[in-house]
Amino acid sequence: MTDLATPYYLIDESRLKHNLEIIQQVRERSGAKSVLALKCFSTWSVFDLMRQYMDGTTSSSLYEARLGYETFGGETHAYSVGFSRDEVLAVREFADKLIFNSLSQLRRFHPDVAGLNLGLRVNPGISYSNFDLADPARRYSRLGVSDTAALAEVAPWLKGLMFHFNCENPDVDNIRASLETLGREYGELLHRMEWVSLGGGLSFTQDGYALDAFCEALRAFSRTFDIQVYLEPGEAAVTQSTELVTTVLDVVHNEVDIAIIDASLEAHMLDHLIYRTHPRLASPPPGEHRMMVAGRTCLAGDVFGDFKLAAPLQVGDEVRIADAGGYTMVKVNWFNGVAMPAIVVRRLDGTLERVRSFGYDDFKRSLS
Amino acid sequence: MTDLATPYYLIDESRLKHNLEIIQQVRERSGAKSVLALKCFSTWSVFDLMRQYMDGTTSSSLYEARLGYETFGGETHAYSVGFSRDEVLAVREFADKLIFNSLSQLRRFHPDVAGLNLGLRVNPGISYSNFDLADPARRYSRLGVSDTAALAEVAPWLKGLMFHFNCENPDVDNIRASLETLGREYGELLHRMEWVSLGGGLSFTQDGYALDAFCEALRAFSRTFDIQVYLEPGEAAVTQSTELVTTVLDVVHNEVDIAIIDASLEAHMLDHLIYRTHPRLASPPPGEHRMMVAGRTCLAGDVFGDFKLAAPLQVGDEVRIADAGGYTMVKVNWFNGVAMPAIVVRRLDGTLERVRSFGYDDFKRSLS
Repeated sequence: MTDLATPYYLIDESRLKHNLEIIQQVRERSGAKSVLALKCFSTWSVFDLMRQYMDGTTSSSLYEARLGYETFGGETHAYSVGFSRDEVLAVREFADKLIFNSLSQLRRFHPDVAGLNLGLRVNPGISYSNFDLADPARRYSRLGVSDTAALAEVAPWLKGLMFHFNCENPDVDNIRASLETLGREYGELLHRMEWVSLGGGLSFTQDGYALDAFCEALRAFSRTFDIQVYLEPGEAAVTQSTELVTTVLDVVHNEVDIAIIDASLEAHMLDHLIYRTHPRLASPPPGEHRMMVAGRTCLAGDVFGDFKLAAPLQVGDEVRIADAGGYTMVKVNWFNGVAMPAIVVRRLDGTLERVRSFGYDDFKRSLS
Repeated sequence: MTDLATPYYLIDESRLKHNLEIIQQVRERSGAKSVLALKCFSTWSVFDLMRQYMDGTTSSSLYEARLGYETFGGETHAYSVGFSRDEVLAVREFADKLIFNSLSQLRRFHPDVAGLNLGLRVNPGISYSNFDLADPARRYSRLGVSDTAALAEVAPWLKGLMFHFNCENPDVDNIRASLETLGREYGELLHRMEWVSLGGGLSFTQDGYALDAFCEALRAFSRTFDIQVYLEPGEAAVTQSTELVTTVLDVVHNEVDIAIIDASLEAHMLDHLIYRTHPRLASPPPGEHRMMVAGRTCLAGDVFGDFKLAAPLQVGDEVRIADAGGYTMVKVNWFNGVAMPAIVVRRLDGTLERVRSFGYDDFKRSLS
């Protein structure tokens, strides 16, 4: 199976394992448990591997919670920015922890879920994020409870608190300072809880990350408040594990050479379009030839980037977009009806397995 | 069927018919044919109505072309920013017109399609667009051929040209000026063609649009070059026809009152997130109460808008997002696994028909 038709996402289990082993180290050295953030990555065909290194999943909807429960196992944390009552009744049947986003949701549904392991999301008013769009402490944020006095009132109903205030934070000093702030502002409350989730967005599987200091900070926090810490790695679990493998369909020239590949930034790597960022290429290698790489939808801005490559791209060449695992497959869409990338897994033993492919019927069914 | 569960897109065939009748008028008065731009709207459950007023469909991929052929009928125009050879071989079996984006694609595939009704997309270097992302004449655009001399060389292979240079253009004077430019720059070529497509992005179904002047300009252009003009209405065909009907799940307060509804800007009305714009509300009515309306995904920026309403929203209230037909259903995604809006059609006789609903299995199948 060496001649797979492009486009496809290629998830490399060996690279995934590299991240998972770091997560495992952090579990052992800090005592913090890790639950996979399904909002970032929920390609369940690799969960057999992932569950060996993680404690379960966390979710942002009933469907994600159910997917985690059915396909990952371990602990199932169920959170939603806004549950409906039907969803609460469904999710309570299998969730280990049920985390509400607001006091009003907690109060409304408390009669339905009293006795369960309940948590509440807190907005600590601090954050680390490069993008206002993704900043949970932005002005008018609806994410979590800011009112500390009200929090204290409902504390008897709660076993845990969730703080989610990071987004791609690579800085351990910053995290240490944040933990101090949380301790200072919420210390009394934390002493009364069994668990606290520090959310995701911590880039602790990156090369060169100060793991010792990170683990020590987590352990100290956990000891101070006699509390179980949870991390919610999403991107950290899958970073650098996945490529989007494509083929050049055409090369055109408009001031620069532009290679059009059989994928789309908007349809297949949406966050780069939303945040106006550009992915890196895993191949071909860099060099002196300037070449834009663009997607195949009709959107003028469907551009992967402006690169300098070792050789000019030709029709039929393969182009691999790097780091295409997080926040990609979870938000693919059928814009322009362009062919949807298949999902291929390189298993630990090196075999390639095409776990999902999409066709015309999937496209048609997405509409009516 | 008055108690439909939200969220759902509600397509109102009467409102659709209002647009379609204007399209029909333009066909009669200008001689221009209209093909539906499937990239904007391809909810095929209302094609029985639409095909009575339009000449067929135009597309941006093999799948869209096939959908148009199978579900709409009439003329099937097949365009792609980049075809693969397999796609050309498939699409040539049913497309009435095959439109290439570049000289290189035309030359590469000409042996496969010689004798068919072929067109080429031209980049005239002019455009009307409020957004650089969507501007086909932006710098380094890969959309269409700019080289007029090379165009003349391949003209014997071609029966038509496609110009797509507008995006929500409400200004007839501007269109008239653009047609003059096209005539001046491409007149000789146009005289040799059977047809020319002026693309989409012309807001001619809006209230108050100068239809007389528009039809006259199209007819004059058609006469001057003895050519069949095509329009490709997408948004113009469906504008104001569709609402996204939602329910308030929670109301929280952070400086302002924020209603969280059971839908998502990112997942269900993506273009507003990409272009940083905000939709209008169809209901509740405007007034004095400031209220943000936000989506239910974990994204901080999943905000529909900051509105002034007649009364504060309460949990359980219905909120209808206006004008949710174009570029919405064609790019829905499963971010956060939040419930996908069903698609409901209000038929001409007033009956409501739920033509598609989505559940957990659709979510799970979107992944692996």
